[in-house]
This record gives sequence, C-alpha cells and structure tokens, in this order.
Amino acid sequence: MFQTFAAPSDAAAIPERMKRLRALIADDGLAAFILPRGDEHQSEYVAPCSERLRWLTGFTGSAGRVAVTRRHAGLFVDGRYTVQARAECGGGLFDFPGIAGQHLAAWLKDKLRSGDVIGFDPWLHTASEIERLGATLKPAGLTLKPVRRNPIDVLWGKERPAPPDGPIVPHPLKYSGRSADAKVAAVQKVLKDARQDAVVLTTADSICWLFNIRGHDVAHNPVVLCFAMVPAAGKPELFVAAQRLSREAHAQLDGVVKIAPPADFKERIQALRKANRRVRLDHDWAAWWLARALGKSAVRGGDPCVPLKAIKNATEIKGARIAHVRDGAAVARFLAWLDRAIAAGEKIDEITAVRALEEQRAGSQTLREISFDTISGSGPNGAIVHYRVTEATNRVLKAGELFLLDSGAQYLEGTTDITRTVAVGTPSAEMRERFTLVLKGHIAIATARFPKGTRGIDLDPFARRALWMHGLDYDHGTGHGVGSYLSVHEGPQSISRGGMALLEAGMIVSNEPGYYKEGHYGIRIENLVLITEAARADGGDKDTMGFETLTLVPIDRRLIAKELLSPDEVRWIDSYHATVFAMIGPEVDAPTQRWLEAATKPL
Amino acid sequence: MFQTFAAPSDAAAIPERMKRLRALIADDGLAAFILPRGDEHQSEYVAPCSERLRWLTGFTGSAGRVAVTRRHAGLFVDGRYTVQARAECGGGLFDFPGIAGQHLAAWLKDKLRSGDVIGFDPWLHTASEIERLGATLKPAGLTLKPVRRNPIDVLWGKERPAPPDGPIVPHPLKYSGRSADAKVAAVQKVLKDARQDAVVLTTADSICWLFNIRGHDVAHNPVVLCFAMVPAAGKPELFVAAQRLSREAHAQLDGVVKIAPPADFKERIQALRKANRRVRLDHDWAAWWLARALGKSAVRGGDPCVPLKAIKNATEIKGARIAHVRDGAAVARFLAWLDRAIAAGEKIDEITAVRALEEQRAGSQTLREISFDTISGSGPNGAIVHYRVTEATNRVLKAGELFLLDSGAQYLEGTTDITRTVAVGTPSAEMRERFTLVLKGHIAIATARFPKGTRGIDLDPFARRALWMHGLDYDHGTGHGVGSYLSVHEGPQSISRGGMALLEAGMIVSNEPGYYKEGHYGIRIENLVLITEAARADGGDKDTMGFETLTLVPIDRRLIAKELLSPDEVRWIDSYHATVFAMIGPEVDAPTQRWLEAATKPL
Repeated sequence: MFQTFAAPSDAAAIPERMKRLRALIADDGLAAFILPRGDEHQSEYVAPCSERLRWLTGFTGSAGRVAVTRRHAGLFVDGRYTVQARAECGGGLFDFPGIAGQHLAAWLKDKLRSGDVIGFDPWLHTASEIERLGATLKPAGLTLKPVRRNPIDVLWGKERPAPPDGPIVPHPLKYSGRSADAKVAAVQKVLKDARQDAVVLTTADSICWLFNIRGHDVAHNPVVLCFAMVPAAGKPELFVAAQRLSREAHAQLDGVVKIAPPADFKERIQALRKANRRVRLDHDWAAWWLARALGKSAVRGGDPCVPLKAIKNATEIKGARIAHVRDGAAVARFLAWLDRAIAAGEKIDEITAVRALEEQRAGSQTLREISFDTISGSGPNGAIVHYRVTEATNRVLKAGELFLLDSGAQYLEGTTDITRTVAVGTPSAEMRERFTLVLKGHIAIATARFPKGTRGIDLDPFARRALWMHGLDYDHGTGHGVGSYLSVHEGPQSISRGGMALLEAGMIVSNEPGYYKEGHYGIRIENLVLITEAARADGGDKDTMGFETLTLVPIDRRLIAKELLSPDEVRWIDSYHATVFAMIGPEVDAPTQRWLEAATKPL
Repeated sequence: MFQTFAAPSDAAAIPERMKRLRALIADDGLAAFILPRGDEHQSEYVAPCSERLRWLTGFTGSAGRVAVTRRHAGLFVDGRYTVQARAECGGGLFDFPGIAGQHLAAWLKDKLRSGDVIGFDPWLHTASEIERLGATLKPAGLTLKPVRRNPIDVLWGKERPAPPDGPIVPHPLKYSGRSADAKVAAVQKVLKDARQDAVVLTTADSICWLFNIRGHDVAHNPVVLCFAMVPAAGKPELFVAAQRLSREAHAQLDGVVKIAPPADFKERIQALRKANRRVRLDHDWAAWWLARALGKSAVRGGDPCVPLKAIKNATEIKGARIAHVRDGAAVARFLAWLDRAIAAGEKIDEITAVRALEEQRAGSQTLREISFDTISGSGPNGAIVHYRVTEATNRVLKAGELFLLDSGAQYLEGTTDITRTVAVGTPSAEMRERFTLVLKGHIAIATARFPKGTRGIDLDPFARRALWMHGLDYDHGTGHGVGSYLSVHEGPQSISRGGMALLEAGMIVSNEPGYYKEGHYGIRIENLVLITEAARADGGDKDTMGFETLTLVPIDRRLIAKELLSPDEVRWIDSYHATVFAMIGPEVDAPTQRWLEAATKPL
C-alpha cells in the first residue's frame, strides 16, 4: 500500500559518515558546513536522492538542519521533533540547540571564530535565508560560502538514489477546470502589470498547477520536481526531460509551453541576466543560486501562481465536494469496522488501523495516493502532534483511551485531509470535557461569518476561546490551505497566529483545533472548509463570507458532553450529522449504514 | 469649564496666508512645503503655538498634513476627517487627495517634476517618516530639504501664541506609586543590557511618567512639553526652564535629575555625537532633526519608558479603581438627570449635555481636567466616530433617537474614558438589536481569558463576531491603552487589527466596540478594563489572564434585547450591574440612587 512503518536502521553508519564529511570540508578550507532537509524546490516531501539530512544524521523528520564544524555538530529541529531527533540521533554525535531560524547563528558564533568560512549548498537554501544568516554572522567575522558540489553527494556516491524520472501526466481539464493557456495568460498579466519581463518558478506545486501536469516524484504529493520560466509575452519554458512526458502530456502542452532539458536551466537564467531582463523571483522560496545568478536582474516578488492557485475554480470546487463524499464514505466504513472490531474484542494496533483505512480508501478509481503519512496515535501517542507510527512505537488500542487518526487522500477530483478522535471503550469525564471544548472551537470556525478584508489571524482565536476559558490551548495553527489534487499544505492562506493573508471566497482551508495532554492523550477534530460568499444578512451592510464544511464523517458522539454546548452548537452538530448521513449514507454498505445512523443521531 | 464649542472663524484670512506662504517658499527656492499637524513631541494634543496647520488651512482635526506647491495645495486627512476637512477648508484652495501615509508621495510626484526640492520642518516630522517619504520620492528626482525656520512661524509672526510656560508640579508618590529614582534605574538597566550609553526621550508622557511631574502645556493631557536625556549611568537631564518648576517639583527632582535650559538641548545632542556615544532613539517618535544630528551615534530602539509605563503598579491600580468609582458616580448622576429632564419634556441639546456632565464631574477635589474633548452626538451626529459638537452642529436630543456620549476625566488617581449610548424616548427594534450585538462583543472582551503570549490582535475579533454574524462591523479598533493621570491614548498595547504588542497583567485598555449607521445613529459601549492574572482554571495547564472591568456605570437596559443574549451574557450584565450599584450607589444622591436601582435591575 502507501505507507511504510520501518524505523531507520543505518544508525551504525552515521559516525563514519560524519568523520568523512569533516575530512572533506577541512580539505575545502571550510570551518563548517550547513545542511537543510529541503531540496532545490523547498518541497515539504523530498525525493529519496534529497534525503541528505537523513543519510548524514539518521533524523527522519520533515524539517530540520544540521551544522557540522570540525569538532561539533548541531542538529536544529522545531518543537514537534525534539524528542524524535534525540531518539534517532543518539550516540553523543550531536547537540540539539533548538530551532535553526532562532539558534543557528548563535551556535555558529559560539563554535567558530572570526575569519572562519561556513560552506552551504547554494541550491538548498533560499535567497532570503542566506541573506538573513549572512547578515547575522557578519559582525562576528564569519562568512558563508557556496560549495561547488554538495559534500554529502560526494560521500553518498553511487549509493545515492537517482533523481526521480517517472512519467509526467496531464491533469485533464475535467479536473483542473482551467486550461494551462488561460493560467499562463493570468500569470503574464501579473507580470505586465508589474512591468516585469519574466518570472522564474521554482516550486513544484506552482508549476504543476500552471501547466496542468502531475507526477510522482515525491511521496504523497502528485508533483513533478522541476523549474520553469514564464516571460511576460511569448511561450513559457518548462525544464524537464522530454521523455518523461506521457504522450497525452505532450499533446496537452504542445503549443502552450516549450520543453527544455533541465541542464539548460542555469544557462537560461544567465542569459536573462546578460540581457538585463527584469526577472521576478520569490526570494522566500527560490534557491540562493538563482538570486545570485540573476543579480541585478532579480526583482523581488511573490510567486504569481500562489494567489491564483489558492482560489479554486468551479470545477475544482465541484471536484472537492465529490472527493469528500468518496473519502467520507471510506473513513466511515473504517470507523464502523473499528467500532465493531473493538466491540468484538479484537486487538487492533495503530498500524493495523492505518492499513484498514487504506483498504477502505483503495476502493476508489480516482484515488492516486494518500496525501501525507497517516498520524495514527493511540493513548499517549495521540499527544505527539506529528506522530508517525513505526514498528517500534506501534501500540494496541486499549479501552479507556482515545485514538487520534489524521489522514488524507489524493483523488483526481481533489485532496482530502481529515482528523477524527474516537473513544476506545469508555472515555473519562475529563476526555469528554476537553473533546467538547475542542469541538466548540471547531464549530466557532465552521459557523463564522466575516467581512471582506478578514485575515486568518482574525479567525484563529475563535477556535481557542473555549479552551482558553478553561486554561487550555494547543501549540499549532488552526488551519492550513489545501491544494486541488496537489499539496495538502499550500499558501498563502492559513488560520493561525501569523495568518496575514486575506481570506477569499474559493479558498480551501483546514479547521483543526486540538488539545494534547502529554503522556496521556491527544484530541483533534479536523474538517476541510471552503470559503464562500455568504448571503447578505437581513439589514447587514457588509458583504460577508463564511465556510462550507466539505469533510463528511461523523464526530464521535460518545465524546460530546452536550451540557457544555449552547443550543446553537447542538443545532450545528445535529445539522452537520444529518448532512453526513444524507451524503455518505448512500455510498456505504448496510452494516456501515446502520453504524452511520447511530453515529449521526441528533444529540 | 473645560470644553469650548465655537467653530473656527478666521476662514477669510486663509487665502492671504496661503499666498504669502507661496511667496516665501519661492524665495527659498523650494517647489513645495509640507506641514503636519504634530509638534516636536508628536503630541496628540498640541499647544496653541503649534496649531500651524489650523492657522494655515482652517482645519481643526487632530491629525492631518498639508502639502503646498506654487499652484496646488493638498490637504491629507484620514477617514474620520474627510467630511470635516471639506467643510472647514472650502473655497477651492485645497485638494483632498486622501491620507498622507498613502497618498502624499503620489500627489507630490504628480504635481512636481524631477529636480524639485520640497521643504519640511526638521522638528515636526519623525525620522522614520522622512526616511520613508524620501525613499519614495527619490526615484522621481524629488528631494526633501529641512528648512532653517518654519515659514508658518515667520508669517504668523507676533500673532503666534507664546510656547507654554505654566507651572510644572510633582505627581506625588501617593499617586505614582514609584519614585523617579526607581524609574530612572529601570530605564538605565534597559540601556546597560543593550550596551547603549544613553537614550534621548522626546515624548511628553514618557518624560512626565519617568520624573513624576505634570503640567498643563496642552489641553486635557496633564503633560509638560520637553525633552530629556537619560545616560546609562549618572544623572539624567531634563530640558525645561527652571522657573517653571514649582517649589515642590524642585524639591522632588533635586538629586534625581539635572535641570537644563531648553536651549541647551541641541548642543547636548551634538556633544553626544562628537563623543561617539551609542544613543538610543525611537525613530518612529523622535524628530528627524535628532536622528540627523546624532548621525552614526543614533541606535534605533523603542522608548524604554513605553513598556514600563504601560504596566501599572499597585498604587496606580488602586488609584484607577478609586477614580472609576468617583467618575462612575458623576456619570450616573448625569444620566439620571438626563432621563428626568427628557421625561419632563425639557429641550436638551448636545452642548447642554456636555456642560451638565462636566458639572457632575467638577464636584471631585482630585479632578484636574477632562481627558479629551467630549463626543456628544445625538441621532446622526452619533454616527460620526470622532464627532466634536460646535455651536454650528449642535442638535436637540429627540425622541426615538440614540444619544452617544464618549467622555473622560483626569483625576490625580487616574484617567478615565467611558462611552454610553442611551435611548431618548422609545428606541426602534433595529436600534435594540444592534445595540445588543455591540453589547455581545463588549461582553466577549470583558469575559475573555487568554494565555500568556496573547496579543491585542488576537482578542479584537471577539468584539466583532456577533456583528459579523449579522453582516455588520465597525471601522475602528476595539481598545487603546490608557495612562495613569496621563494620556488617554498610550501604547504599546491595543486591541485592534494591528495590535501586535503582548498583553500583560497591569495594563489598562479600553473595551469599546461600536456600530454606526451613517445618517441615522451611532452606538458604542466603552469601559476601561485592567488586565489581571486569572486564577488557574480547574485542571487547566496554562497560566491565563483576564480583564477586570474598571468603569462603573449602568449600560442602558432599554436598549438590550435580552432574547439575543446567552444565559452567560445575561449573567454578566446582571452581575456587572450589581457591582455598579454596590460601588457607586453610596456615592450618589437619593434621586440618582432611585434611578440607579432601576437602571441596574437584573434583566
């Protein structure tokens, strides 16, 4: 199936790799080398050939950075990975000084001395990041130097996996709703309005959206890792090996875009520089190499695909609704099975659960992948926000515990992402109270109406208020943008403490407040919601927007303390459950239908 | 009493003044001159000698800017003043191109041509403002040039009022709660920690807070307009005429601060520069002249008094509570009188109301001033957010209308600021519905609990949610910080769309959501609240904070549509009213007590 559960096992090789790396950087006259987890496209999921951080350190998390000096090595990870990093990278080889953005410069200043040079791979760090880090290190006499070839690649040698070369297929108009021609024209209008000659696109999801193509270069996100260049007038260039394109993809792209070999990309950039073109580049996402190579030709500006891609068209919205009925039915079948299995006394563990859920989803013809590694956490594992079950951490679901399952799927019609927390056996009063507080936050988002000009930062507190009133909170954002058969995390919108992007009709975001009691249990209730224009309220004088909940799966009634809900909140739950029953009831088998009927009864 | 109501009357002189200004700037080789409403200290209220914008243009608002070229003049005001500016500055002399921050540069680029030089007074604009404006004008070939003497002052000549020279008195420890010595030590610690040699203080409220002094240099804010310099070690210098200090002020400041003549200030700044001292300067508040004179000696950094001043000490908090009982009693006496007068068929107009309210407040021995010009708006005047009644706009309160009264007072114990909206005769169902929606927002703030790390931006949406649900909103922030017998507007905290400062226990902010139906009525309900550490909730795992409502005046029950309130909201109102009755009942006369009893009855 889609997910693997083995823990990494080459821990024994790490000391030798670190030793060889130190020899190599010493040969290059470097005092240190820094290495991020990211790739040339700042992808969240990277190809096996880009798993350099994992190869060097054993760390398997999705974000992190290592700095290696001749004597020390600092592994920088954020809060969600501190425990995991220590477990995976033991043996005294690494310090764990905190988060790279906050602590990397201080750590380097502490370990190095004035005049020292720190190497970095110019393709793996963004222009903004190197600018910031360089400015911070400068007063201490430390310099950053791009390396010609990444020393990890030298050491990894023939063992290093080849770059992805799988097929590239079209994403048909039937699903995308807008032709590549029309999208290119929209991007070109942005460039013309800004008096820019071209834009260099570096992120995989932007390029796949723009040209209506998809691939399987990384796990879970159906993207192609490549670069592209769109001039303000004329044909864009897509830098991928032509033989990777399926016949259908060739047919679709013919006349729309020029296919150029990836090896030509650097030259093309240098040519733009020589011709003194004004080239838009998103310094927060583009590799430092590009900003450097474009020099004065580089004009700072956001990737123009990002805001266009975020607002789904009518076809994508229709597709999202279809995908959610199909996905809701699959998750409901799974939950019904789980309840039956537990009632029958079967031993279900976290991995069994993931497999059973994948089996239910696999029934769909348009399913292509899961949209991220399922978070399947029972009891204390549920309190680890980004938990990923392995054979080593796997636990059997026990009575009296909560089970948190956060999963999603990639259908041709759209991407899903859902979290349900269910009771195994009889939950405690505290669990029910806190589940209900999280639910109140979820409902506060689901029912919110807000005027134009509202940002995600303005809605995030609604999800927390009920928890705050009880001295509780959660340490993650309330919602992230979601792509259309594309990345499960996409910007610019979010519902979070930093969410400054305007919310606009047609955007899809998650609504996922939670609560985590370390060492005991985790709670999260996540639906995807679509931002819609709300009907004008009687007498209201502002145009307002609201949310349509897309996800269609019952919320565990056994965990709801009805006495904590207001009449309006009870009405919302009952009405949501009625919709769930009406929409997915016809899609499920008879036993699931019986389960669904009980699970969606009015409170 | 405290407030005057005459409309400005020297409109006839404006064309001649503009003509003479144009001649003067032409003589100086300038293509244009820009003039803000502010003074050398960026005060909200300025002394009569600084009313240059009003003298030149007739505009009486509290914020604005004029740019005068040889042929054109643009008067830049924000949304609250657009109607007023057009009314006050007619005759075709001025364009009204919008807000200075957004439109000034574009307007100048449009009216001038490359090579032109624009004059500005280097003491009236902040360093940040001139930096930004200069950078925006540069590509168009326009240059900003500081003038040696403000041409308005030249023209105004002997008619220009003298600068304030009234007495400076101590603000006794009994009210301030912390000695100037201790405050200076706290500022010096900030400087030492930041390895800075000194800080230049430029805002009146910071300096008055730091040295525990007060004066009457401007209306309504009991401040002294002056500069000060605090070195990291040693005695601070306060630049004021020694003869202005009362004997008590001399005694209090003796040994704490060196008094230096205002004329020495410039020299002192230049000396710091020559000695290569690292001098902290708040570029967002300090005059451009200071940043320029300090040159490389200037270190950008916020005014260290601001965060210290914002967190009230135990004495100030006790004082605030006392001031609010006294002020609440005065406002209650006024509201009781108003109800009786209206019931008796008396004709009450907006000015009569202001005078009657001032009379009630004047009874207190520690009252020193009103804290701002009272907003007394009946019917459609209530919908003008920053309305200030004049003889020309004065209206009689009519049955079926709402009356909005926003006022405050300066007591030695603390500063108050309260808005009540009351029904005159029988209110419409729509008025009651919207009043209740505003009230729901007010209660949502009053009852909020929130963890450490919460910013005002996180709470602002709570005040709007009920309005948003009905397609309504208001175009101002929900709350501003308030000083302690000091400015009625003080930072850094606010509850607003831009409120990024952390909320901390001991801060006082206003809670004032509203709703305005243009041409019909305005609603605002404003109490001051104190941020307190909340008791730890049962089982909660976060330290949380909450608000204690300081203001003690009934909220008009005739305007509350109880059916729109939740049981918790009804409980809050009833409990608030019970507190109001218990606290101010003993302070009022028998007729007011009877009125109060009815006004605070449970819903």
